[in-house]
Amino acid sequence: MSTNEPKDPAFAARVHGSFAKQGLMATLGARLARVAPGEVEIELPLSPAIAQQHGFAHAGAVAAIADNAAGYAALSLMPPGAGVLTAEFKINLVAPAAGELLLARGRVVKAGRTLTLAQAEVLARQGGREKLVALLTATVMTVEGREGVAD
Amino acid sequence: MSTNEPKDPAFAARVHGSFAKQGLMATLGARLARVAPGEVEIELPLSPAIAQQHGFAHAGAVAAIADNAAGYAALSLMPPGAGVLTAEFKINLVAPAAGELLLARGRVVKAGRTLTLAQAEVLARQGGREKLVALLTATVMTVEGREGVAD
Amino acid sequence: MSTNEPKDPAFAARVHGSFAKQGLMATLGARLARVAPGEVEIELPLSPAIAQQHGFAHAGAVAAIADNAAGYAALSLMPPGAGVLTAEFKINLVAPAAGELLLARGRVVKAGRTLTLAQAEVLARQGGREKLVALLTATVMTVEGREGVAD
Amino acid sequence: MSTNEPKDPAFAARVHGSFAKQGLMATLGARLARVAPGEVEIELPLSPAIAQQHGFAHAGAVAAIADNAAGYAALSLMPPGAGVLTAEFKINLVAPAAGELLLARGRVVKAGRTLTLAQAEVLARQGGREKLVALLTATVMTVEGREGVAD
Repeated sequence: MSTNEPKDPAFAARVHGSFAKQGLMATLGARLARVAPGEVEIELPLSPAIAQQHGFAHAGAVAAIADNAAGYAALSLMPPGAGVLTAEFKINLVAPAAGELLLARGRVVKAGRTLTLAQAEVLARQGGREKLVALLTATVMTVEGREGVAD
Repeated sequence: MSTNEPKDPAFAARVHGSFAKQGLMATLGARLARVAPGEVEIELPLSPAIAQQHGFAHAGAVAAIADNAAGYAALSLMPPGAGVLTAEFKINLVAPAAGELLLARGRVVKAGRTLTLAQAEVLARQGGREKLVALLTATVMTVEGREGVAD
Repeated sequence: MSTNEPKDPAFAARVHGSFAKQGLMATLGARLARVAPGEVEIELPLSPAIAQQHGFAHAGAVAAIADNAAGYAALSLMPPGAGVLTAEFKINLVAPAAGELLLARGRVVKAGRTLTLAQAEVLARQGGREKLVALLTATVMTVEGREGVAD
Repeated sequence: MSTNEPKDPAFAARVHGSFAKQGLMATLGARLARVAPGEVEIELPLSPAIAQQHGFAHAGAVAAIADNAAGYAALSLMPPGAGVLTAEFKINLVAPAAGELLLARGRVVKAGRTLTLAQAEVLARQGGREKLVALLTATVMTVEGREGVAD
């Protein structure tokens, strides 16, 4: 649906550098697992520290990695110097997030000059099997020339 | 828009008890600030531990407290024994979440038998002033008779 | 939440002129009922011509007037010459749209330079009573300098 | 992502029958183009009668066929006698809907007992080429035993 030609040859280093600055990812224990042009994967081990009241992963934790996977998929296609901000996202939670690991797979659906549409699936891995637990759709904004907003 | 008559006289204790079981809220440092029938407020001090790459609060942290404020507003009107699950939410991030404290104010828009529509505003408090940073709309499901899913 | 100071003194004529160009509104039978800075109301009589399979108004018809009420509320605050485009919207349908008339009430939540967040409630009027049937949240884009896209 | 085993052997007739009862589809000029288990396609010729102010197809018309494609994809997997209602949908409009024909392609992402998650892409066909113009995500409800709500 998209040619996914990176405008910045250093796109992968840029995504890794930005991810490393996110205090929340360290707090949750999330890890950047894969960066390709227009595609990013993030892993999050399940633990009581990210749980909701029934013991499943909290929708906020699921949304955090899904938003990041979608947003960084968008950033991987942006021109050098631009910053990425999520304008809005929507997430459907289709099954309890239970298992050993959550895996968020983000991809760009349509990259525009100002707005990019990206999606992320979140899968729960349990005993070698993967199950869809959530689907996120995000509108991501390319921000240029705003102080303090790069990558 | 809603009469907001609680079906469970112990609604406040129930919301407090459920919130206390959420590992993610302790991990983020969030606090349940107010519980009324159909209305719940949650506070989250801003810190590098919940930040994204530009130093603002991460959309995932903003979404986590907004989803909780909306979901617990819904739970406060549910019959005893029922559990609450978010089926989906949508959040618009309208300004960078910067300041000392985030305040999520959730309220029920329409309580149905199976599905409840709830909203939450997230405000950032800085130097005594409050500013809207996000607006969330959630579809919350009343779950009855499913093992392990209460409150 | 917003000062709602119009940047164009001719905002009302502009909204009326744009609405009159929308073939779909005439096809559905919708009418622009009120235009104020940051607030727009649209009415749509219920009829079999806009129904879904159970005889209620179709979600597409409900969404059409809600999107317009939100989008025109946004346009009413835009500078002269700018065009309005909906980037995305989300609508929750909380009750069957039955009755004599649907009324969509749009208002701006936060007007930004590029993106405006607007909401619209849709009420169904039946026998002098009004009932909430839908709630829409839209991200509306201000488009400047694009040929063919004004108002 | 889904086995898409129809629970009703008459699923195609059922979708065609329900579509034929929708006054709005006739009013807009839409046509049911394909019905398979968990997948439905709807076509809508572009005309001034469904336009917005710049001459493109109105977001409401785009949403109407996308919601239907997603909803009927869900209905195609529901048990006999059940009715389908859209609880909410979200649509991103990524390009102006211009051309000769709009084509909405809906598919079930996850079919649940009460709630089904479905998506629809809307493509615009112009001179033999297709272009993505919108992406919709819907939460569709299975309604059983409610009078007047079948199919």
